[in-house]
Amino acid sequence: MAVRRIRCELAVIPDTSGDGTGVMVAADVVLTLDGEHIVDVDVGAAQMDGTEFEVDVQLAGLTMPGFANAHSHAFHRALRGRTHRGAGDFWTWREQMYSVAARLTPDNYLDLARATFAEMVLAGYTCVGEFHYVHHQPDGAPYPDPNAMGQAVITAAREVGIRLTLLDACYLRAGARLPLLAEQARFSDGTAAGWVERVDRLADGEGLRLGAAVHSVRAVDAESIGAVADHARRRGWPLHAHVSEQIAENEQVFEEYGCTPTELLARQGALTDRFTAVHATHLQQIDIELYAARRCGCCFCPTTERDLADGIGPSARLAADGVPLSIGSDQHAVIDPFEEMRGIEMDERLTSMRRGTHSAASLLAAGTINGYRSLGWPDGGRIAIGALADLTTVSLDGVRLAGTSMADAVESVVFAATAGDVTDVIVGGRTVVAGGSHRSLDVAAELRRSIAAVTS
Amino acid sequence: MAVRRIRCELAVIPDTSGDGTGVMVAADVVLTLDGEHIVDVDVGAAQMDGTEFEVDVQLAGLTMPGFANAHSHAFHRALRGRTHRGAGDFWTWREQMYSVAARLTPDNYLDLARATFAEMVLAGYTCVGEFHYVHHQPDGAPYPDPNAMGQAVITAAREVGIRLTLLDACYLRAGARLPLLAEQARFSDGTAAGWVERVDRLADGEGLRLGAAVHSVRAVDAESIGAVADHARRRGWPLHAHVSEQIAENEQVFEEYGCTPTELLARQGALTDRFTAVHATHLQQIDIELYAARRCGCCFCPTTERDLADGIGPSARLAADGVPLSIGSDQHAVIDPFEEMRGIEMDERLTSMRRGTHSAASLLAAGTINGYRSLGWPDGGRIAIGALADLTTVSLDGVRLAGTSMADAVESVVFAATAGDVTDVIVGGRTVVAGGSHRSLDVAAELRRSIAAVTS
Repeated sequence: MAVRRIRCELAVIPDTSGDGTGVMVAADVVLTLDGEHIVDVDVGAAQMDGTEFEVDVQLAGLTMPGFANAHSHAFHRALRGRTHRGAGDFWTWREQMYSVAARLTPDNYLDLARATFAEMVLAGYTCVGEFHYVHHQPDGAPYPDPNAMGQAVITAAREVGIRLTLLDACYLRAGARLPLLAEQARFSDGTAAGWVERVDRLADGEGLRLGAAVHSVRAVDAESIGAVADHARRRGWPLHAHVSEQIAENEQVFEEYGCTPTELLARQGALTDRFTAVHATHLQQIDIELYAARRCGCCFCPTTERDLADGIGPSARLAADGVPLSIGSDQHAVIDPFEEMRGIEMDERLTSMRRGTHSAASLLAAGTINGYRSLGWPDGGRIAIGALADLTTVSLDGVRLAGTSMADAVESVVFAATAGDVTDVIVGGRTVVAGGSHRSLDVAAELRRSIAAVTS
Repeated sequence: MAVRRIRCELAVIPDTSGDGTGVMVAADVVLTLDGEHIVDVDVGAAQMDGTEFEVDVQLAGLTMPGFANAHSHAFHRALRGRTHRGAGDFWTWREQMYSVAARLTPDNYLDLARATFAEMVLAGYTCVGEFHYVHHQPDGAPYPDPNAMGQAVITAAREVGIRLTLLDACYLRAGARLPLLAEQARFSDGTAAGWVERVDRLADGEGLRLGAAVHSVRAVDAESIGAVADHARRRGWPLHAHVSEQIAENEQVFEEYGCTPTELLARQGALTDRFTAVHATHLQQIDIELYAARRCGCCFCPTTERDLADGIGPSARLAADGVPLSIGSDQHAVIDPFEEMRGIEMDERLTSMRRGTHSAASLLAAGTINGYRSLGWPDGGRIAIGALADLTTVSLDGVRLAGTSMADAVESVVFAATAGDVTDVIVGGRTVVAGGSHRSLDVAAELRRSIAAVTS
């Protein structure tokens, strides 16, 4: 790809004057790209030397690093709006989710994942970590290509133009000493060795990285957790796991192992700086200390955690101990990175009755650089020389953001923007969304068609 | 106004088959209007008799009763995005709010309220209760017209085309035995008698009703609360008060009176079926019982309560006792009735770890009929014969709602729509918003201009 230049009316760039974690808003920022990376950043350069850059793309509004959706189950999008009748909890919701999982095929999963990923890029996500556990045929038998479902996810992301980390999940049992439920048969490779054999047939590609996942300490026994963690380490993959989303999960693990899920993951060698605990809602103090000591991350999914009545996680204590937080839209009750970012702080305000635990800059880091790192893209999530040219632009002209001041632009966007304010999205230097529309897909039509195929 | 007909592709109408509180979605609903009321509702009539109605307005998508914003401080819109630097709580936020209040004039308040009300109608609110307490000049002296500020609010609503209840608030002191702070001087009429004399110069008008407010038990002494309540009863006005938003407020009232704010309001004769407690966050069991026994309502403001770190109110216990809940966008951190409606249930899920305490139908009632009643419009908030023709239509074609099924349309809209999905808004039979745009105002430009006037 040839060198390209992108001019941003306003851009959020690192503020090098402080401790290095701050950001600032600069006007008239010209980015020079070589392939998918930024190789030069000129701030107000046109004014300084009196000449005009030739630019290929003009971005009006405020351009930020693109957002990383560090935890997605693409097929859950089909459940949006359909699970709110009657009462219940996480476990009753899970029954409804399994009924959709049972209907997936490589073909309809390709369609549904493509539509869901397309909704994500429209919302400003430039990178997604798909936590992928529906691997096999409904009875558990492998497809002729045992990675047919994973390939559907990979194809979907490529056709949308979103960066993907396929977090292939090991899932072996229903719980302690419990065989798989019939609905769970298609999730399992039988053994951790079976999981290793299958995932090793997959390879990184352009805009694609592989990663590993332990579905949960409930669904994978201790020895197999160790095997998955070993394999992730050998391959240099990120490793994710659902951790302590539900109190019942903590209780079951304590009964089986006499420790917390986090402690078990630590014993089995899972906790490294490539590990991300997803949800991390019901943590003990020891868990927080382990994550801090092992330099792990935690992925919060506020719109899911509120929807599924999970509770409010200890974001304040994690952040205070230096554990990087990232965000995920998980079950896609909504797909909106702004809702996820501010959700971390809003939930904290509701429980602590204090404002300002998480600054707008730290929430933006959760939505961008921390998520990229969690997904194995350490060069993503910032607008800087050497970084991936993954960019999301919001208009400040809509009624929600009208009146935004330069001085408070980051705060305004983090606390008041929505996915609907996103106008332009660039992934690896390529324009994926312009003027609020996907370059090639009729996203709403694809959603309608693909959701109907698995629900009606 | 002549008879008009409106055809709705889909409409949310009362479901008369159950206990009368349910709603259903009907296709091809023709509403006949006389003036601002609905005088006939035909469901699928065209199909039944083979003839076509002549209609004046066609509404594609899902049409609901318009939403009532039962608690607004219009000028707080200028603070959006500007209060998130550093830490703090409700009280530190209040200092920033006072700095805007100090800069209001009848002219710039007209502009700011008009822009804010216009953002509301774009979001689907058809009726607003403006809790109005900035009455006088900054030093406390009345304007030549002592209701100049109230008239600005009235003019703003009329120019926007939104239905208004002006809840004129009595505000007399900073707290128990504490004189007003300098910043509060302009809120006060000196005495309750002064408040009565001033508000009695105001009169109802087309699309306008008057109401009373006790700012809070902190800001109005017991005797004056009684006088305001008496006047509201004589005039048949709704009466609102901020109640137990903050724990410190409860503590101060207990110290002064030895009871809860709600108990004091009860003693002073404020609690009738025209009373609405705003926030009602930190209630005792006796408070809930009083509201239920006196048939009061409670107005929750979830997007404000999370933003201001107020805490989570007892919506489950109030609803179980039959206390009608309504919604308000209050400080306008966001203006989105869907966020407020689902916020009641989402906050409850976070605290109770149960789903489904509030059904979509009951949340829709909070956003519509309960709010209309709270604001003194008992004929509003439903699509039925005899009701006000206040209607809000959302498109189901956007990516957020794509895939919505007829069977789950109410759930989908309540739990997944945003203000950005609203396409058409009709108030009293008049089209105010069409195709997502206000009929006469450039709302974003008005917001920019009016916010700059009070902040820069």
